[in-house]
Amino acid sequence: MKISARNILKGKVKQVKHGMVDTEVDIELPGGIEIVSVITKYSAENLKLKEGKDVYAVIKASNVMIMVE
Amino acid sequence: MKISARNILKGKVKQVKHGMVDTEVDIELPGGIEIVSVITKYSAENLKLKEGKDVYAVIKASNVMIMVE
Amino acid sequence: MKISARNILKGKVKQVKHGMVDTEVDIELPGGIEIVSVITKYSAENLKLKEGKDVYAVIKASNVMIMVE
Amino acid sequence: MKISARNILKGKVKQVKHGMVDTEVDIELPGGIEIVSVITKYSAENLKLKEGKDVYAVIKASNVMIMVE
Amino acid sequence: MKISARNILKGKVKQVKHGMVDTEVDIELPGGIEIVSVITKYSAENLKLKEGKDVYAVIKASNVMIMVE
Amino acid sequence: MKISARNILKGKVKQVKHGMVDTEVDIELPGGIEIVSVITKYSAENLKLKEGKDVYAVIKASNVMIMVE
Repeated sequence: MKISARNILKGKVKQVKHGMVDTEVDIELPGGIEIVSVITKYSAENLKLKEGKDVYAVIKASNVMIMVE
Repeated sequence: MKISARNILKGKVKQVKHGMVDTEVDIELPGGIEIVSVITKYSAENLKLKEGKDVYAVIKASNVMIMVE
Repeated sequence: MKISARNILKGKVKQVKHGMVDTEVDIELPGGIEIVSVITKYSAENLKLKEGKDVYAVIKASNVMIMVE
Repeated sequence: MKISARNILKGKVKQVKHGMVDTEVDIELPGGIEIVSVITKYSAENLKLKEGKDVYAVIKASNVMIMVE
Repeated sequence: MKISARNILKGKVKQVKHGMVDTEVDIELPGGIEIVSVITKYSAENLKLKEGKDVYAVIKASNVMIMVE
Repeated sequence: MKISARNILKGKVKQVKHGMVDTEVDIELPGGIEIVSVITKYSAENLKLKEGKDVYAVIKASNVMIMVE
């Protein structure tokens, strides 16, 4: 299975916080970098997300902005 | 300066590839993780992006999808 | 600090409405134009948004659609 | 005709710059504020966009980020 | 009225599920295909969405990813 | 393999039009509905997209707007 999104980052779920409609998922990448994702609660349950689970963070290149100091 | 996007990842520009309208920027995060960004060429020039420059990859939490095997 | 998003519009917070996960922020631009933003409650609190605060609305050019009559 | 996007801003096309695939459209809002939009060239031609044309900039609230100094 | 988004799919509302801030709308396209939309509750009420109503699902081409097996 | 995006629509590639950076892909769903996707040329080549290939159009629910007449 392959997807057109350019960034597919392997990590582990660090924390899952359910709201009523949305769920916040903290993902830890190798090297200790953390990425926060907000998906629907429906999807979080459907993917059976829980602490420690192996996941991929999937991000389209056009959704990555760049900031400089 | 603070922005509402949840993911602000510090890295270094690894490569800049200019198209006619868009520019692809490869960013290396600590630990060797790479993130690909596509921004307008105008912005890439305005930010004076070039190999080795310190930058932040800025990603809204709602633009981070999750995939599981 | 510079960001790759093309639209950086200076305004003032007119109203903040907190939900459980998300917060709606109404921003007034010069000339009386209003822009509505929905960000996470976490970010709204982190940015200490409240009525009257000076802010910038940041919008990527590719997220601006055009409609004609 | 009504759309679920929260921001529907009336303006006038100030400039149209065609690339090979994408087109950049500068829109002037009342009060002199300018908004930059990037749409496909196909859409720009389909909408017959040209300098001086009345248009609406359509932006989803969740695509409006907030930055503070 | 014309919009720059490339996908304008005619369908019928099959179900509306209100959250506190967001509303999930299931749209049935001809041929039985279903599309799920999440919009703000404000917009869902403003558009008077209810089961059976004729609607268009509007999707920008750059928001359609492709996956292959 | 499962992804958090809510809309995973099975279809067939009808046409592939390469630009210099981006590629437009027309996908035909059952019942004759067509969906247009714009992805990077890199991804289109990586996925080996060509006429007749079975693919899935993947769309986040929050990227589906609703329009009514």
